[in-house]
Amino acid sequence: MKNYKMVLKYDGTRYNGWQKQGNTSNTIEETIEKMLKKLTETEIEVMGSGRTDAGAHAYAQVANFHMDWAKSTEELMTLCNTYLPEDIVILSMEKVAARFHSRLSAKSKIYEYRIWTNSIPPVFERKYVFSNGRKLDVSAMKEAASLLCGEHDFKNFCSNKKMKKSSVRNVYGIAIEEFEEEIKVSFHGNGFLYNMVRIMVGTLVEVGEGKRSTVDVVNIFEAENREAAGFTAPACGLALAKVIYE
Amino acid sequence: MKNYKMVLKYDGTRYNGWQKQGNTSNTIEETIEKMLKKLTETEIEVMGSGRTDAGAHAYAQVANFHMDWAKSTEELMTLCNTYLPEDIVILSMEKVAARFHSRLSAKSKIYEYRIWTNSIPPVFERKYVFSNGRKLDVSAMKEAASLLCGEHDFKNFCSNKKMKKSSVRNVYGIAIEEFEEEIKVSFHGNGFLYNMVRIMVGTLVEVGEGKRSTVDVVNIFEAENREAAGFTAPACGLALAKVIYE
Repeated sequence: MKNYKMVLKYDGTRYNGWQKQGNTSNTIEETIEKMLKKLTETEIEVMGSGRTDAGAHAYAQVANFHMDWAKSTEELMTLCNTYLPEDIVILSMEKVAARFHSRLSAKSKIYEYRIWTNSIPPVFERKYVFSNGRKLDVSAMKEAASLLCGEHDFKNFCSNKKMKKSSVRNVYGIAIEEFEEEIKVSFHGNGFLYNMVRIMVGTLVEVGEGKRSTVDVVNIFEAENREAAGFTAPACGLALAKVIYE
Repeated sequence: MKNYKMVLKYDGTRYNGWQKQGNTSNTIEETIEKMLKKLTETEIEVMGSGRTDAGAHAYAQVANFHMDWAKSTEELMTLCNTYLPEDIVILSMEKVAARFHSRLSAKSKIYEYRIWTNSIPPVFERKYVFSNGRKLDVSAMKEAASLLCGEHDFKNFCSNKKMKKSSVRNVYGIAIEEFEEEIKVSFHGNGFLYNMVRIMVGTLVEVGEGKRSTVDVVNIFEAENREAAGFTAPACGLALAKVIYE
């Protein structure tokens, strides 16, 4: 059996996220597995680098699967793209070492979040941005973002209250870019808890709106409750931009 | 009664074009008129600068309407945007002279057409490009485009065979820009016949694919039939980019 690694782009609008959980259906993972079953008439398990939320997108999600395939990888990728719905596309595919695992081998990830700041609502971008419609204080946001960087216990930036594993993560960097109609926030870290990026965005938006002081952000780490952090920004603004290996 | 001019952006995917024709419903124009009726409880006629095809988009369509309104124009625009569906937005609104007519006062228009040339299909752009999936010979297309410019009888670049009015139009310029994954073609002219932009695009794509020689384009003007020109490129790649006045 060969181990195939693929890089995927998808518009997550109509999906219940990447991964099937319990009875959840209509996930990206399930859609790809069904496509592979159609192609090969065997059950093939697809492993993603991690979950993406319902309604969130990916510019470059990574997944791998083991399969017997006699023809070229190129041909396999073309066939897969033919069978996939138009909101999911495989950008690249390659044979990798048997030990490669898209989740366990991942070293870090980059997420991007788009905040629409123009008072005129978005049209073509409406499914890919959080439409907030107001200017934000970007320099305050940048200062707050720098305080979120580094190794911290991010438990208060997580929606899963029953989490038993360590909630310590290292955020290597947060970049904030301002454009005419939107702000793009990029998060690079060794891992992200459930909703962690969206709660960091909500917190930064509150800073940008002047509802929260910059230094206040540090107190969230020490606080006793999740409510200390900002709101959970909507999934539609979020995209998994890159998974870094090796 | 005041005369309001507005600039509109819309995603035309789910509409039957700009204008109601006979029994056609679900048009952009109708949607705006219904919104104004809701707002004012009177029937208000909206006049667009021209039709856009079913499924085609606009970055800046212009329309005007006459209405009694006591409050500020800004307030009117905000209210309209609140009532409009999320795929139509008013970018600007202003009171103009009573004689202003969005169609009759228009001097020229710019249409943009996006051709996806990457073999990997588009995901986020899929509703806004013609997904052709192959590289095109852009320099040949530019040469052919230059031959389409100027004042010509464009009857063979028109899908309406029963047209009685003059089919002479002046195309001031055609700009072709190449990007990594797509080609953008912009047409500036004093007017465009039914499907004229889409047929020019189809013709240029055939040139770019080597199916048609550059100079052959000139013969289309002289030909006896519409079939001389290229295919009608799909509406989803088309957008009305600008209407020029004065």
